[in-house]
Amino acid sequence: MTLRRVSILGVTGSIGRSTLDVLRWAGGREAARLVAITGHSNIGALAQAAREFGAGLAVTADPARYLDLKAALAGTGTEVAAGPEAVIEAASRDTDWCMAAIVGAAGLAPTLAAAAQGATVALANKECLVAGGELFIAACAAGGATLLPVDSEHNAIFQVLDRTRQSAVERIILTASGGPFRDWDLARMARATVAEAVAHPNWDMGAKISIDSASMFNKALEMIEAKHLFGLRPEQVEVIVHPQSIIHSMVGYVDGSVLAQLGAPDMRHAIGYAFHHPHRAPMPVERLDFARLARLDFRAPDEVRFPALRLAREAMAAGGLAGAVLNGAKEAALEAFAGRIGFLQMADVVDETLSALAPHGPAATLQDVTEADAAARRVALTGVRARAA
Amino acid sequence: MTLRRVSILGVTGSIGRSTLDVLRWAGGREAARLVAITGHSNIGALAQAAREFGAGLAVTADPARYLDLKAALAGTGTEVAAGPEAVIEAASRDTDWCMAAIVGAAGLAPTLAAAAQGATVALANKECLVAGGELFIAACAAGGATLLPVDSEHNAIFQVLDRTRQSAVERIILTASGGPFRDWDLARMARATVAEAVAHPNWDMGAKISIDSASMFNKALEMIEAKHLFGLRPEQVEVIVHPQSIIHSMVGYVDGSVLAQLGAPDMRHAIGYAFHHPHRAPMPVERLDFARLARLDFRAPDEVRFPALRLAREAMAAGGLAGAVLNGAKEAALEAFAGRIGFLQMADVVDETLSALAPHGPAATLQDVTEADAAARRVALTGVRARAA
Repeated sequence: MTLRRVSILGVTGSIGRSTLDVLRWAGGREAARLVAITGHSNIGALAQAAREFGAGLAVTADPARYLDLKAALAGTGTEVAAGPEAVIEAASRDTDWCMAAIVGAAGLAPTLAAAAQGATVALANKECLVAGGELFIAACAAGGATLLPVDSEHNAIFQVLDRTRQSAVERIILTASGGPFRDWDLARMARATVAEAVAHPNWDMGAKISIDSASMFNKALEMIEAKHLFGLRPEQVEVIVHPQSIIHSMVGYVDGSVLAQLGAPDMRHAIGYAFHHPHRAPMPVERLDFARLARLDFRAPDEVRFPALRLAREAMAAGGLAGAVLNGAKEAALEAFAGRIGFLQMADVVDETLSALAPHGPAATLQDVTEADAAARRVALTGVRARAA
Repeated sequence: MTLRRVSILGVTGSIGRSTLDVLRWAGGREAARLVAITGHSNIGALAQAAREFGAGLAVTADPARYLDLKAALAGTGTEVAAGPEAVIEAASRDTDWCMAAIVGAAGLAPTLAAAAQGATVALANKECLVAGGELFIAACAAGGATLLPVDSEHNAIFQVLDRTRQSAVERIILTASGGPFRDWDLARMARATVAEAVAHPNWDMGAKISIDSASMFNKALEMIEAKHLFGLRPEQVEVIVHPQSIIHSMVGYVDGSVLAQLGAPDMRHAIGYAFHHPHRAPMPVERLDFARLARLDFRAPDEVRFPALRLAREAMAAGGLAGAVLNGAKEAALEAFAGRIGFLQMADVVDETLSALAPHGPAATLQDVTEADAAARRVALTGVRARAA
């Protein structure tokens, strides 16, 4: 293992913490020299990571927490900065491998900066591809960045995709756990609470992502991501409900062969794969015991109960800024779900917003994307108000 | 698709016929110039294949059928020959791609000849690796032959194995349908008839292979094959019963990731893969519909009812000619199963023979292998007689 320069954008979140685990397992400071790390409000965790790995730069996105971070890292030699511009500056520092794990639209500009400087980008942020797909792929190409997906589904596809022979790929099959409402009927889903939606059966995730999983908007975003990431036509992107989450996703080839990646539900699989790629290193994750698993189940997704999947196909077909609009509207609806609109109304709001803002222009610049995001949130809020009234 | 020179050893069997299908689908004479084909007793099918593809040489292994074949191909320009030496001569003819699908020990010498001339060898014959593993792998290396496995299990592993990073491989997991006696108890298995044993639930195979599948000797041979083919240690070779035969086999890596190849049970998958490798070409095989499949099941193999698996591990651990002995004894026991010994006694005979002939020397020459095979058959027949008496 050679020493590599590593940056982690979003080091205090669940992906960031798992990334630190992977680095520890790889040899800690023997394997990774931490060039820069960024976090938001959890200053304690940010400072602890900086101390453990002797980070060159630690940044909090929140300017109000600058002095806290400064105090926490006093005497360590770690440079300290704060604010969104400092996060972009951290992402721009020359590095070999960058984990892009800032959640939400705030991750877009820093991840673009990491791509522009030509690092290997381990991508955990969804918005880069969902909202700014064409833009982000172009930035990676221009910067000479290698893009390695860290979402377990896209990482699975990456592991079994023949990227040298794109014409051999017939379809990809994203697996979906189906979330906590997999077996609920429409009436019960309409009354679902936030607490019910965050109870994800297989994965330990943040609350926002858990609600997206319950509505399958998470899978909708992954469909759009997959289209951009692997250069697919919308009709090549399929979804199958697979409650056990053991098959992380599959690729179907023109000869009828299907290749799949399987593993225990543990984010360190995908992160470790991205860190060691193109090699593989031993990981302390659970091994699959197929006799104990006994069975793997599959069913077609129900697009009546989970309209997010249909909306994703519409956004993929429309292309350009439709992804940014879907994502922005979804974010606004998600925030309104906590009290103002019902669970099923989230999709209604997104659907309306996609229609209201059509036709969708190209995602050519970061400004295009942020404007489309803002417009989508405005229109979606109008829809929220109409329902909450 | 460029025109390639193709030979098919064993063109009239089930693998040979599927290979012709694959060639037709690839473009027939536009894709393949048939250098040589061989068959045994089915002269009609042999001559028909020669006519359809304008084969350069057609050989029957049976000298008594020379005149029949000569007559059937009169006026075609196809050269005709007969006898085991002529089969080896056919295999030695310069070709780009050779399907080695002669069943049984008779396939060993011709397949070695094909390997020696440096062709890409699509290997369907089990004995080359089971009985002559070290010898055959060395012959491929010496001749510069590329070896592509056509057994669906080994082909699956080949498709998802990182052959450039052997140290990343932790284990391979061969899937087994479990055969027609999967759910039978020992007492019922002891009384099993030939007719019951050949009724394979998923695959359309020959009678001999079907009985081997019922006893799981088929899987035992595949374990030994896999060890040689992929350079594995015996403990890296696992077997899991998977009744639906949809997952064709899997590779587990040191990072806990498992890669699998899946497909409908259709030999044209593996043959087409081997023909088009490293490309993939559209194949008219059924596409997997996971919603319709609904579930995939797994269970640990029962080594009390299927001692063949334990015998395979013992033969792998012993190495050298133990594979040839296991295979020869199994062949003799299989022939005796038709009336002279019971179904479960086949494994007893093989077990006894492996012990009686231990320690097993190295498989250095073809003569070593054929002598070990003959010795195993003799000892096994003694065991058969003791039981049949």
